[in-house]
Amino acid sequence: MTSFTVWAPTARRVDLDLLGRSARLPLEHTAGGWWAVEAADAGPGTDYAFVVDDGDPVPDPRSLWQPHGVHGPSRVYDHGAFGWSDHLWRGRALPGSVVYEMHVGTFTDEGTFDAAAARLDHLVDLGVDHIEVMPVAAFPGRHGWGYDGVHLWAVHDPYGGPDAFKRFIDACHARGLGVVLDVVYNHLGPSGNYLASLGPYFTDRHHTPWGAAVNLDDAGSDEVRRWIVDNALMWLRDYHVDGLRLDAVHALVDERAVHVLEELTADVDALAAAVNRPLFLIAESDLNDPRMVTAREAGGLGVHAQWCDDFHHAVHALLTGERQGYYDDFGSLATLAKVYTDVFVHDGAWSSFRGRHHGRRVDRERVPGSRFVVYLNDHDQTGNRATGDRIVTNLSPGLQAVGAALVLTSPFTPMLFMGDEWGASTPWQFFTDHEPELGELVSAGRRREFAEHGWDVEDVPDPQDPATVEHSRLRWDERAKDPHERILGWHRELLALRRRTPELTDPRLDRVAVEFDEAARWLVIRRGAVRVACNLAPAAQDVPLGSAAGELLFASAPDQGALSGASVRLAPESVAVLRCG
Amino acid sequence: MTSFTVWAPTARRVDLDLLGRSARLPLEHTAGGWWAVEAADAGPGTDYAFVVDDGDPVPDPRSLWQPHGVHGPSRVYDHGAFGWSDHLWRGRALPGSVVYEMHVGTFTDEGTFDAAAARLDHLVDLGVDHIEVMPVAAFPGRHGWGYDGVHLWAVHDPYGGPDAFKRFIDACHARGLGVVLDVVYNHLGPSGNYLASLGPYFTDRHHTPWGAAVNLDDAGSDEVRRWIVDNALMWLRDYHVDGLRLDAVHALVDERAVHVLEELTADVDALAAAVNRPLFLIAESDLNDPRMVTAREAGGLGVHAQWCDDFHHAVHALLTGERQGYYDDFGSLATLAKVYTDVFVHDGAWSSFRGRHHGRRVDRERVPGSRFVVYLNDHDQTGNRATGDRIVTNLSPGLQAVGAALVLTSPFTPMLFMGDEWGASTPWQFFTDHEPELGELVSAGRRREFAEHGWDVEDVPDPQDPATVEHSRLRWDERAKDPHERILGWHRELLALRRRTPELTDPRLDRVAVEFDEAARWLVIRRGAVRVACNLAPAAQDVPLGSAAGELLFASAPDQGALSGASVRLAPESVAVLRCG
Repeated sequence: MTSFTVWAPTARRVDLDLLGRSARLPLEHTAGGWWAVEAADAGPGTDYAFVVDDGDPVPDPRSLWQPHGVHGPSRVYDHGAFGWSDHLWRGRALPGSVVYEMHVGTFTDEGTFDAAAARLDHLVDLGVDHIEVMPVAAFPGRHGWGYDGVHLWAVHDPYGGPDAFKRFIDACHARGLGVVLDVVYNHLGPSGNYLASLGPYFTDRHHTPWGAAVNLDDAGSDEVRRWIVDNALMWLRDYHVDGLRLDAVHALVDERAVHVLEELTADVDALAAAVNRPLFLIAESDLNDPRMVTAREAGGLGVHAQWCDDFHHAVHALLTGERQGYYDDFGSLATLAKVYTDVFVHDGAWSSFRGRHHGRRVDRERVPGSRFVVYLNDHDQTGNRATGDRIVTNLSPGLQAVGAALVLTSPFTPMLFMGDEWGASTPWQFFTDHEPELGELVSAGRRREFAEHGWDVEDVPDPQDPATVEHSRLRWDERAKDPHERILGWHRELLALRRRTPELTDPRLDRVAVEFDEAARWLVIRRGAVRVACNLAPAAQDVPLGSAAGELLFASAPDQGALSGASVRLAPESVAVLRCG
Repeated sequence: MTSFTVWAPTARRVDLDLLGRSARLPLEHTAGGWWAVEAADAGPGTDYAFVVDDGDPVPDPRSLWQPHGVHGPSRVYDHGAFGWSDHLWRGRALPGSVVYEMHVGTFTDEGTFDAAAARLDHLVDLGVDHIEVMPVAAFPGRHGWGYDGVHLWAVHDPYGGPDAFKRFIDACHARGLGVVLDVVYNHLGPSGNYLASLGPYFTDRHHTPWGAAVNLDDAGSDEVRRWIVDNALMWLRDYHVDGLRLDAVHALVDERAVHVLEELTADVDALAAAVNRPLFLIAESDLNDPRMVTAREAGGLGVHAQWCDDFHHAVHALLTGERQGYYDDFGSLATLAKVYTDVFVHDGAWSSFRGRHHGRRVDRERVPGSRFVVYLNDHDQTGNRATGDRIVTNLSPGLQAVGAALVLTSPFTPMLFMGDEWGASTPWQFFTDHEPELGELVSAGRRREFAEHGWDVEDVPDPQDPATVEHSRLRWDERAKDPHERILGWHRELLALRRRTPELTDPRLDRVAVEFDEAARWLVIRRGAVRVACNLAPAAQDVPLGSAAGELLFASAPDQGALSGASVRLAPESVAVLRCG
């Protein structure tokens, strides 16, 4: 017997449609708007749908598999059937880790979990600790970024479906790599969303960039919150995922006294105890609110880490000179120094992009830097540019080294975007695979957006054009060529250095000090006895270290080595890491 | 010279229209969207308006006086000119106080501050500490509740205008009474709101029951927040008000890292130090979120107190037997016992009225009960009933005494609604004085609302009918008649008892214990050695006290006094306060 259940609080009747059978089975109303029925001969592999009040069949809101696409029936899947081999895996804590952001669809030519698993040795050699997999929840079409997901519980079938995702995770764990999954709870994609016919999943109390907000605080929100929290727990428990990256939590507007994120962190912490391994949540938050990563017992939401866009903007604007849009308040060495010591640039300061003051000061004596994920680049910072050009393709190799070092020697939790470790020449563009009508709207929207910013629309890749996703695939053969090999070498060296140097992983922000000269364009970050010395100028210069220089730990310039007393002579656009006294 | 300033960030030009003068004066753009001009011969008493981009003249968003109504010009007013006599007033702390809610327009026949001031001796004799004045910000028409205010900085002229309010406050202070003002920052009334022509005062990011939300977190929100915070500071500083009651703060939706309420409490606390007297904020909050009244240094918003509707609902449903609407989860003695010890009934519990779980547990070992204002009745709980009938008109005198005692002996901050202290026979109904077209909409809306609840619309008073406000006026002459005189006597006795009994004002919630018998309908609240013993049954009964009864401190029944060992014999529907052993 297989149990089928669904929450449909306003339905007058609900039927189970087992595909290929002539008669539908009526579900019984149990409690709290839930309906249930037991069906014989409907084991794993059976396709089914629900019929509410004699309407059209709709997929299960908790469907575990959508082999026929987002509009088709759901398929019964048994989590207990997979043969895991990761019995010795005891998890990997986030503090001290380095994260690698991967888009399964473009990481390899095949764009599948199995093909990605065949490339794991590259990541082990690189020295990262966790792979952050961009969203895998079933979305419309074959390829896309994944933020248009509509079946939060089902693994996108073109990637390989649920079993393939488990094989991938099992393979990661076998190599000592953790897996973080990007999950989207703030909206559903524009096609394939059948939730509204089942219950009050959305509310007009709040608005998001994608329309009506997910109902977290209106009538019926208890079950919507459980639908989210249970989903998070499923990935961590049934897929052995180690952490979740929560997309755009600022769009999870929730006025209840217990925010859904606090409900979620409490349940995840309880599950971590039950499975006896570290589990963690990483929020993408635009709020610059330290309460996000403050412990629950101290009045916070208890999220384990959050992305820090201010760090990105400070480094990006400094290295590229770009100042448009949200880079407006960034670009100086002083701003970079501020993120290193205070985390947020907008910590109550004026934000010209937002037209208001923004954010709040982090208590740097109490909140460890490891709770902030920092990066030179991520999928958004590349893909939301008109042509999807990576920052690494716009920088000299020397400045690429400086950027990598600023991320990988920081007191924060570093993250790399796939391909950046070898300065990939391939762009990472915005691509979709919608049905024609919606696809044309998406293409037109993209053109309009960049035309408003002065772009010639001919230069903006069409998201629906199959060439766009193809251009975005990594080219693994270029790794061995110059300058990619040299850039990859720097990343390996810096990751190995971070691993063996406790001063660099030390997350205590009150032990970080930064000195810089805005005019001469040098910057020295002090981490205990270790110095990260950067020369951004196009000419060599002596950079003061504050104490007598000793061992040279890393140098991006081949001829680096001139240490004299309490200073170091740095080549143009170069970085060195040294131990003093 | 008089300075005129206005914030109009998107205006291309702004002119000052000084009424009666032929030429307008152009304002100069200063900084941050502000405009300013100095005008000669435009001192106090001068009427003026602003003209934005050659449009129609609009009143000043910070107008201090609207003698010609909400649509007319503003009048220059000098706060420095009033002759205060309250130099010895050093304020009155909220913990240990009892509040009296007053609607100026119906407190007396005249409906003015001066007429209200002539009745202050009644309140001194009664024994309350603070008068909470319902909103006085200028609203459309002559009379109304005040929640339709559109000029937040101007005192409603039909009440007497700014000088009359100051005379009233001065008179209160002279008698040792503090003044709390009800202020509405979550919306503006439907008529006379000219703000949108001046700046982004509203946002569609959030929705409230009154439409677009006040812009607290969108672009331009810095100045909207200052408009609110500066207004609060004006009442406290320039009008010598002692505290503010913040209307419906749950509709102040603010996703910024520093909530506007935290910005406000920090500024009010700073002003309290500057003027060296207690100043406080009382929030009306539907969130049941203890963070509201938690200190800022503990991660809270630092509001000094909040209304506790759960207490009201528990007592109201218990005494009246009503269970409709939001009384659904209330009515048992167990529920009343819960509010006495835990404050919130919905402290994470299921709320059937809201269709979801609601609220969060108060840390009763840390948060004092004085941070919760409790009442047997308030303007909403009477006026939002179809006929505006007071709870006291629906209870036997004995149960009125029980209700009064439950409020006035509680560990919370008690509040009385005007007239209830003598069990006023007059209703307090919903009345408005809108222009005909809007007025008809309001009348029709009221009829429709109650028709949906099964009322005969003929029985629902018309808010626009001048008889409705007249019916709502207190009848002072009935005070001396039975049973009003007896009821007034109980209130005076209970207030005096509270003042001289430290066990009753003790706000420590972990020192409160409650015993009750649901079937026998008795309840005993333990406050140290003091017992508040209630018999809700229609027959006399012995009620156990847990220790040997000693002194009888208060009794509602005239023949009370039978103490025998560890119990007391209580008359039907009566209450006694005793000191044990």
